[in-house]
Amino acid sequence: MNKKSLTKKFNVLYHQVDQMGIVHHAQYLYFLEQTRIEWLHNQGVSYAQLERDGILLPLTKLSINYKSPLHFDDTFFVHLSLDFFDRSFVTFSYVIEDEKEKELTTATTTLVFVDASTRKVIRCPLNLNKIFKQ
Amino acid sequence: MNKKSLTKKFNVLYHQVDQMGIVHHAQYLYFLEQTRIEWLHNQGVSYAQLERDGILLPLTKLSINYKSPLHFDDTFFVHLSLDFFDRSFVTFSYVIEDEKEKELTTATTTLVFVDASTRKVIRCPLNLNKIFKQ
Amino acid sequence: MNKKSLTKKFNVLYHQVDQMGIVHHAQYLYFLEQTRIEWLHNQGVSYAQLERDGILLPLTKLSINYKSPLHFDDTFFVHLSLDFFDRSFVTFSYVIEDEKEKELTTATTTLVFVDASTRKVIRCPLNLNKIFKQ
Amino acid sequence: MNKKSLTKKFNVLYHQVDQMGIVHHAQYLYFLEQTRIEWLHNQGVSYAQLERDGILLPLTKLSINYKSPLHFDDTFFVHLSLDFFDRSFVTFSYVIEDEKEKELTTATTTLVFVDASTRKVIRCPLNLNKIFKQ
Repeated sequence: MNKKSLTKKFNVLYHQVDQMGIVHHAQYLYFLEQTRIEWLHNQGVSYAQLERDGILLPLTKLSINYKSPLHFDDTFFVHLSLDFFDRSFVTFSYVIEDEKEKELTTATTTLVFVDASTRKVIRCPLNLNKIFKQ
Repeated sequence: MNKKSLTKKFNVLYHQVDQMGIVHHAQYLYFLEQTRIEWLHNQGVSYAQLERDGILLPLTKLSINYKSPLHFDDTFFVHLSLDFFDRSFVTFSYVIEDEKEKELTTATTTLVFVDASTRKVIRCPLNLNKIFKQ
Repeated sequence: MNKKSLTKKFNVLYHQVDQMGIVHHAQYLYFLEQTRIEWLHNQGVSYAQLERDGILLPLTKLSINYKSPLHFDDTFFVHLSLDFFDRSFVTFSYVIEDEKEKELTTATTTLVFVDASTRKVIRCPLNLNKIFKQ
Repeated sequence: MNKKSLTKKFNVLYHQVDQMGIVHHAQYLYFLEQTRIEWLHNQGVSYAQLERDGILLPLTKLSINYKSPLHFDDTFFVHLSLDFFDRSFVTFSYVIEDEKEKELTTATTTLVFVDASTRKVIRCPLNLNKIFKQ
């Protein structure tokens, strides 16, 4: 698999569904977050350790298009790609598909490197820089 | 106040904050949702009744820019404006400000009118049409 | 009102409801939490400040009986009472009622004073001790 | 494995952690729910299908003891046991352990069979009755 992409499989959990009977739109942000953290993990980067090392990666931008809904117990896949990286920001895009490869949702998120103590934007640490540039 | 806008006051709740000590980015979607539903309510439209009448208003598009974070117990304001309305879609924009009127976050959401039984896109019901066009 | 009790009014939000059309059972824990924090606030204690001062109040025990459900947009009331206090633990009980004073849910929670740096159980700080003993 | 028990492995997700740096107490209810639904699934019962067949299984009682906290990225195990079953109610108990088999949390939940249309308590359907009695 391309080092700059990841596909993660999910199942819709009961509490993620609202009274319309579809996954509440806010829940998708957790799916994206889990996929990002797993991608970092697969690159050898523990996000837990990153925070312990004083580096935060908050989200600064998000856009998402909901095309077809997800229902309780549905299986779906989040395909993540690293889109763009400069010295302080990193942008991922996502395609969510069902088991028949029907595109359900697309999204883009931008995250920024922040120093945990000063809460100021910082340059991406060297070890991550290598990973993002690979 | 302009009929096409609303300002709603919030306080950050404990469980909305993550281990960075800031409101988790997914929580903002609930703030926007609450503000939309209150705006509809102020126009004489009960969203609960709308659903009982067989009309759903799921979200189809969302974009959000997070500029400055919110912390536990912070007071903040969501300013909603009705941006655009055509016969099946309605777009709202939002500015979130702190108590000093500092802009913290901006967002745009598009919602679509859907028939609850067929799950197909429908034209906006007449009574809502009037409200959105006012 | 009795200093050791508080009644807080709520409205059910859209995202708190699951596909059964009732408030998901986990959401009640947030209602109890909000009521506790407001009770402390009314006693002159900011929970945000308490944490900044290095004192945490995690939950150690919870029991809850769900008798009748809540639906989207329902108004309800959480009645909190301080039940029991010893030097490290404090127990609150709660009754949730609808607008007709029908009892919907009852609950009890026990919280413990913990030092934020050592994560060990500590004695309740003197200023809180006074409040709890009043 | 005993048909009346199940062990499910979890990893703590980022958004499940609060600003104390520990899993928020409400999140545990989702862990218990996921484990129950998987246990049913392993018995050949789809909870999604059960609801489509007009049978709901809302929670009526919950008690939980939080002994040691969970942190972001921790691995943990939920051990579920079917404790007690009568014709309308079923009680499960849970032990949550870390990777070293240290007991972190224990819990008990009671659920009740409800007819989706009348919202009245009903007898457990025959096919489930067999499973619970095995």
